[in-house]
Amino acid sequence: VELLQGIATTRAIRRFSSAPIPEQDLNRILFAASRAPSGTNRQPYRFVVLRDGPTPQAAKDLLAESFAEAWATKSAEEGYEEATPMSPRGRLGSAIQHLIDHFREVPVVVLVCTTPRHHSLIDGASVYPACQNLLLAARGLGYGGVLTGWHLAVERELKSLCGIPDDVVIAATIPLGVPKGSHGPLRRRPLRELVFEGQWGTSAPWAEDPQGTRFTA
Amino acid sequence: VELLQGIATTRAIRRFSSAPIPEQDLNRILFAASRAPSGTNRQPYRFVVLRDGPTPQAAKDLLAESFAEAWATKSAEEGYEEATPMSPRGRLGSAIQHLIDHFREVPVVVLVCTTPRHHSLIDGASVYPACQNLLLAARGLGYGGVLTGWHLAVERELKSLCGIPDDVVIAATIPLGVPKGSHGPLRRRPLRELVFEGQWGTSAPWAEDPQGTRFTA
Repeated sequence: VELLQGIATTRAIRRFSSAPIPEQDLNRILFAASRAPSGTNRQPYRFVVLRDGPTPQAAKDLLAESFAEAWATKSAEEGYEEATPMSPRGRLGSAIQHLIDHFREVPVVVLVCTTPRHHSLIDGASVYPACQNLLLAARGLGYGGVLTGWHLAVERELKSLCGIPDDVVIAATIPLGVPKGSHGPLRRRPLRELVFEGQWGTSAPWAEDPQGTRFTA
Repeated sequence: VELLQGIATTRAIRRFSSAPIPEQDLNRILFAASRAPSGTNRQPYRFVVLRDGPTPQAAKDLLAESFAEAWATKSAEEGYEEATPMSPRGRLGSAIQHLIDHFREVPVVVLVCTTPRHHSLIDGASVYPACQNLLLAARGLGYGGVLTGWHLAVERELKSLCGIPDDVVIAATIPLGVPKGSHGPLRRRPLRELVFEGQWGTSAPWAEDPQGTRFTA
């Protein structure tokens, strides 16, 4: 997969086949993750890889329950339940529901952890680039995943279960596996809404989406 | 450039030639950035692209001054000044000094902005993946850059200068240009230190760096 093409076609994958990820590929995915930049190259990120065994299974169970509860509230509040099934929103809702229903069987769940320094947004600059590298590398090897923050509701319990130290926080929960269905073009806002030239609010005439780009509603 | 190869060879670039970035390439770089995931696909990130003209130049001047001040303190405190010139630390220090000395002439500086929702680390999950896409796409097109947080000391002034609204924060300042010198393999911690299997602290026997990987000290 070519770099820019890979970036343009890495979408959130929430439906996985039961196929495992061979350790050789996991290794390549995490190596790619670890190439990400971080402040002063400190690399304050650590990856806890949950596969089989009692602790990983208990962690997946805990996350599945937490996801289910959070989604019950969110889907009602934000109108996912009433969305037309084949609309983008309807399909997103159904993909999320699928992920929740099958979370316990997801082949690999990576807890991306970090030791924050500033306890603010900027700490993310030293961990989320690694998450994106991880997702892109997974795409490059035929896998897929999705960056979630749904551990937040059970972070304390999850940390205790997995022996994660007090001063470490979980920055992301990333399920990974072989996609059912395919990667492909994404839906985003028009680039004109996102890019300003010289100052806030001044649109950049050169910021144009390639022909055929699909947009969010 | 192949996706995994591109990820493995995108290093922080701090020395730029005076060559500009054509708008067509800037467009492709920012399009790639905008393919990144964000919570509920909200895309709370905006890119303020600083090139020529009075406001961008004033913004670059302000950042250059702020970088210079912050670096004077940091390089003394963290022993960069005493580092052997050709050691990794010595070379990093000299690259940073070069960036500061030439920051006013950097062809493109992107202020990556975001509207935070949680005012914590997790907000970063919706903006730093876009920063990493941006850096990777730049690499793919023959450019380079570095993710910095050095706007922090002058964020208020910079926001006022660029008309950035109060509820928006600057998440990253990314200089971009044609690298002097080349991309190439990175120095990182051994993967064994970063990857745990099943629970914190349990090393993953399959987590191995490819032969020839270079490590941080």
